Amino acid sequence: MGLARRWTFTLDAEFGHRNISAEVAQLVADSGITTGVVSVHLTGSTGAITTIEYERGALLDLRRALDQLAPVAEDYRHNEAYHDGNGFSHVRSALLKTGIAVPVIDGQLQLGTWQEILLLNLDNRARTREVVGVVVGE
Amino acid sequence: MGLARRWTFTLDAEFGHRNISAEVAQLVADSGITTGVVSVHLTGSTGAITTIEYERGALLDLRRALDQLAPVAEDYRHNEAYHDGNGFSHVRSALLKTGIAVPVIDGQLQLGTWQEILLLNLDNRARTREVVGVVVGE
Amino acid sequence: MGLARRWTFTLDAEFGHRNISAEVAQLVADSGITTGVVSVHLTGSTGAITTIEYERGALLDLRRALDQLAPVAEDYRHNEAYHDGNGFSHVRSALLKTGIAVPVIDGQLQLGTWQEILLLNLDNRARTREVVGVVVGE
Repeated sequence: MGLARRWTFTLDAEFGHRNISAEVAQLVADSGITTGVVSVHLTGSTGAITTIEYERGALLDLRRALDQLAPVAEDYRHNEAYHDGNGFSHVRSALLKTGIAVPVIDGQLQLGTWQEILLLNLDNRARTREVVGVVVGE
Repeated sequence: MGLARRWTFTLDAEFGHRNISAEVAQLVADSGITTGVVSVHLTGSTGAITTIEYERGALLDLRRALDQLAPVAEDYRHNEAYHDGNGFSHVRSALLKTGIAVPVIDGQLQLGTWQEILLLNLDNRARTREVVGVVVGE
Repeated sequence: MGLARRWTFTLDAEFGHRNISAEVAQLVADSGITTGVVSVHLTGSTGAITTIEYERGALLDLRRALDQLAPVAEDYRHNEAYHDGNGFSHVRSALLKTGIAVPVIDGQLQLGTWQEILLLNLDNRARTREVVGVVVGE
C-alpha cells in the first residue's frame, strides 16, 4: 500500500517556519497503513525539514545556530555566479537537509510528545514551498 | 510486508551514546524482508540518531563539534521560557536530526564495515529514550 | 514491490563530489513503482549524501562551511588512536549523515527543479565509494 500527497506553504524569508505535523499525520491516517514509513521532503534547495519542539524559544535558538553556521552577510561563491544573494540559504539547506522519514506504528506517526515536524524556508525572500509526502507499508 | 519494534535505552546526560546497529539488524532479520528500507527514529526532541565509526576517539571528536555548534553554557531563548537548561539540547537535536533510513538488500542492513548506527541522548540529564523502527519491503 | 541497486564511484579526497540524481532516477524508473520511497545510502563513515543545487559556487560554499565545522588541521582524538589523519572526515560525515530518503510520486523521483542528490567523499584520500539504493512501494 502507499499514498502520496503534495502541499504548498507560503513562508517568510530567511527562517519562515511552519509545524507540518498535522498534515503528515493526516496523510498517514488517510492511507489506512498501520505499519509503515512516511517520507516527507521539500522539493527545493533553499529550505529544510527537521524535527523540533515547536516553541518560540527553541526556534529562535535554532535560527541563531544557522546564522552562525552560514551567516547571511558572508561572501558566497554562489552569489558571485547568480547575484541572487541566497548563498547562505543553499549552505544551510544542504547541512540541515530537506527531508525526513518517520516510522508509522499502529497507524500512528511516531513522534515524541513535544516533537513536531518543522518546515523551514531558508531562502532570502518569502517563498511558496512545495512539500511532498509518501507513506508506504501495510 | 512490514515489521515494527520499540526499544528503550537509558543514556547519560549531554552525550550519552549507544551503538544500536545490532538491534536494528535483528529487526531486519526477524522481518524476513530481503529488499526494503528500515526507518529508525528517536521519539523526542533532545537526542539524535546518525552513523559513525563507533570508536572512542571519533565519539569525542563529534562531541566537541556539537559543543562548538551549540555550547552548553550559552544563553538560549528556550531556557528563558522553560528554565530547564536544555536549550543547547534542542538545537543540537534539530541540527543532527532524530532518525535515519537505511536500505536492506539480500536481507542485510546496508551499513559499511565500520559504520554503526549511533543513538545520542543530548539532553542535560540522563534519560530513558524510546527508539522506534519499522522495516518495509518484500 | 521493491528494487535494489549498488553503485561505486571513485571520488577525490576531502570534498570529492558527484551528482547521483540520474542514477537514483534510473533505479526508480526501472522499478516500475509509481508511489513509493527511495532510500539512498553511502556504506561508509567518511562520506555523506545530501541535496544541493549542483553548481560550482554552492559546492565551494558548502565545502567552506564543512572546513569551519571540522577543520582538517585540528587535533582529533580519532587520529591519536588510528594515525590515519581523517578525524575531520568522521565528524563531518556524522554531522551531514550518509543517506537520504526521497518520495516517488507518479513514478517520478520528487526533487525540485534545481535540486540534485549530492554524494561526497569526505575522507583525506581519494576513495572508491559504494552507494546503495532501494525503492519500495507499489
